[in-house]
Amino acid sequence: MANSSFGTNRPIGVAVLGLGNVGSEVVRILLEHADELHARVGAPVVLRGVAVRRTGVERGIAADLLTTDAAALVVRDDVDIVVEVIGGIEPPRALILSALNAGKSVVTANKALLADYTGELAEAAERNRADLYFEASVAGAIPVIRPLMQSLAGDRVNRVVGIVNGTTNFILSAMEETDADYQVALSQAQQLGYAEADPTADVEGYDAAAKAAILASLAFHTRVTAADVYREGITGVSAEDFETAAAFDCTVKLLAMCERLVDPASGNERISVRVYPALIPRKHPLAAVSGAFNAVVVEAEAAGRLMFYGQGAGGAPTASAVLGDLVMAARNKVYEGRGPGESAYAQLPIAPIGDTLVRYHMNLQVDDRPGVLAGVANEFAKRDVSISAVRQEGTGKRARLVVVTHRAPESALADTVQALNEQGFDVIVRSVLRLEGTEE
Amino acid sequence: MANSSFGTNRPIGVAVLGLGNVGSEVVRILLEHADELHARVGAPVVLRGVAVRRTGVERGIAADLLTTDAAALVVRDDVDIVVEVIGGIEPPRALILSALNAGKSVVTANKALLADYTGELAEAAERNRADLYFEASVAGAIPVIRPLMQSLAGDRVNRVVGIVNGTTNFILSAMEETDADYQVALSQAQQLGYAEADPTADVEGYDAAAKAAILASLAFHTRVTAADVYREGITGVSAEDFETAAAFDCTVKLLAMCERLVDPASGNERISVRVYPALIPRKHPLAAVSGAFNAVVVEAEAAGRLMFYGQGAGGAPTASAVLGDLVMAARNKVYEGRGPGESAYAQLPIAPIGDTLVRYHMNLQVDDRPGVLAGVANEFAKRDVSISAVRQEGTGKRARLVVVTHRAPESALADTVQALNEQGFDVIVRSVLRLEGTEE
Repeated sequence: MANSSFGTNRPIGVAVLGLGNVGSEVVRILLEHADELHARVGAPVVLRGVAVRRTGVERGIAADLLTTDAAALVVRDDVDIVVEVIGGIEPPRALILSALNAGKSVVTANKALLADYTGELAEAAERNRADLYFEASVAGAIPVIRPLMQSLAGDRVNRVVGIVNGTTNFILSAMEETDADYQVALSQAQQLGYAEADPTADVEGYDAAAKAAILASLAFHTRVTAADVYREGITGVSAEDFETAAAFDCTVKLLAMCERLVDPASGNERISVRVYPALIPRKHPLAAVSGAFNAVVVEAEAAGRLMFYGQGAGGAPTASAVLGDLVMAARNKVYEGRGPGESAYAQLPIAPIGDTLVRYHMNLQVDDRPGVLAGVANEFAKRDVSISAVRQEGTGKRARLVVVTHRAPESALADTVQALNEQGFDVIVRSVLRLEGTEE
Repeated sequence: MANSSFGTNRPIGVAVLGLGNVGSEVVRILLEHADELHARVGAPVVLRGVAVRRTGVERGIAADLLTTDAAALVVRDDVDIVVEVIGGIEPPRALILSALNAGKSVVTANKALLADYTGELAEAAERNRADLYFEASVAGAIPVIRPLMQSLAGDRVNRVVGIVNGTTNFILSAMEETDADYQVALSQAQQLGYAEADPTADVEGYDAAAKAAILASLAFHTRVTAADVYREGITGVSAEDFETAAAFDCTVKLLAMCERLVDPASGNERISVRVYPALIPRKHPLAAVSGAFNAVVVEAEAAGRLMFYGQGAGGAPTASAVLGDLVMAARNKVYEGRGPGESAYAQLPIAPIGDTLVRYHMNLQVDDRPGVLAGVANEFAKRDVSISAVRQEGTGKRARLVVVTHRAPESALADTVQALNEQGFDVIVRSVLRLEGTEE
């Protein structure tokens, strides 16, 4: 067989940091599928140790593999690859840097860390000729990092739109299916284990924003951090929003959007990276992604529109992505190769949210008497915002007016909303959501 | 930037073999996006020559880049990577072997060649420490080769089901939408350029079978050739089949199926690779894949079900996949690394089609008189085939009986059909299609 013709048969040593859902599954597969991994790598893949917070607890793993000294484990001579599945910024950042500086390759699922420190980590990997893989950091088992870094390496990505947070997608799907309000759906998600007791990171969009930063960095060959991402969560989405969305044959999803903006006059390019709940047409491929599933749509110049779909979280799916990276890193150790490193040559500027062209879908409560609609329409016109559709329901003091705009700069739209709010009791802006996934 | 810290700045020379739809697009992008490719690779990527059948024709490319001597081009000292987009077995096979033996890396979109000669080509690549990439050979721009070889390298794939031929999917979609019969839809596809004048390779399933062989090889770490694939085309699919499929809330798709079969008693594994038109439930993710689009569903032990969707053919999408491979191969030349090679360690035996468990959906014309249904049911029972649903329409000599079975060995089902055919004029088997994508 090809594997035996060259390459060493020296075992590849692996250290795993963290033994939660993902770590346990990674360790299980490493131990149970050792023969298969050996065949695929071309050398035995041997678990050298697992760093945990406390030893002495029964974890179904030989006690001598467990250690609380992660710092010593990652630089051990018999460790070739470090798998980091602890999460959070520290100690993972220090441990990964220490491992890379000792020439170890690193596989991590840590989106929060990557969103802010990819540059530092990638440089350390480059300097030490080590691999830094992180397929599991976005969308669990769904291959999206490798397609962006490798499969589309010769193409020009113009847009990435994803549903990359399973918790919020579960909540929004439940709201749509049961007409429930946000708090009810959140409680249900918490009871079923789809949302944490403190759901802030998910429902406020922080998790999605970290993933958006990673996707944008790869798609546009530019370093993007979480702070560059405009972010709104789903806590303000109401049952009424779903009701009015349905009237326009739309649903509501929390979207992570990464777009290349080209100035038509100068040809200058900027990028926009944003996370917010938005209406999308029911016929859009992302509209059918329900429950805790994830999906990412990539639009590239030559490839056209691609979609990747699957389970975006959970111990086993995330472990699948970690192990794929681990096998690749191990093969590179055996064959003395290296995977592709960071490519951040473009360094495109980030456009402020105000410059981004979007469509608004607004729910207004108006006093239905002569002149009010004209007054509302005038506020749009004054800011050059063109209206695409208006729907009025009911009469009297609590008539409902839904206004959908054409694309306009976000700042002009926000100004319009503020002006409407300042009109006093005649007009109440009940909710504003953006409308995405349409061509207009 | 990282790229300048090491690695040579020696240009990477590229030879392109073939200047059809794909080749022209590859050459265009190589020339127009040279700066971007340089940044991504870490060295200039320079087109050294393009092999064509005849020179002297105006092709929009500098004449001194064109040559009819492909054999000389692929071994030129200033060529590092050969892109083969000629198609067919020879001369591509000889040219690729010659290139690999000269240490060049090879990128090819040639599914027919790979389906039969992957072993020989992969061994030549391994021997010469060169890369052999072929993302474009299956499903155009959709990353499916790299996810199977790399992203899922640490997982265990149990099933791959794909719509991998755009021509047949276009024809079947048209039949469904317009109630047209096969010949009408084929003519329409030919007029629109979606089917060739001689459509045999597509409509008889040869193209899909070659792709199924490639997918199965990667999914199961086993060498599978086109001859191992059980194959039926779509020429026998009728408007009536769509009508009866609709009654069961199904549609008809040409599926490429690769399955791991595990003997429950012994645990022994075999694989089944087959291409045929089949009913699938409308709620199955592949049912929504219409027109010339492609999609591949991968089911793996840890990752669960993943789906990849996009444009499966055409010059630009296929060129996107070729260029992704080209950039990776070029980076490996710059950084003296190598991509993962063939992994065919498992060498699982191929199960004959007769052993495969499938469900049948049968359209029968029966003479509706006492005893006929009992006689039909008896033929199933005699072969231990369990019936899942029966629907009878009309009365008299031309009543229609639709029978859907539970899973049974293909051989038992085929025997039943033969026995029914031999019953004489009381029963006419009008059509038989398999039913896939259900759990029963």
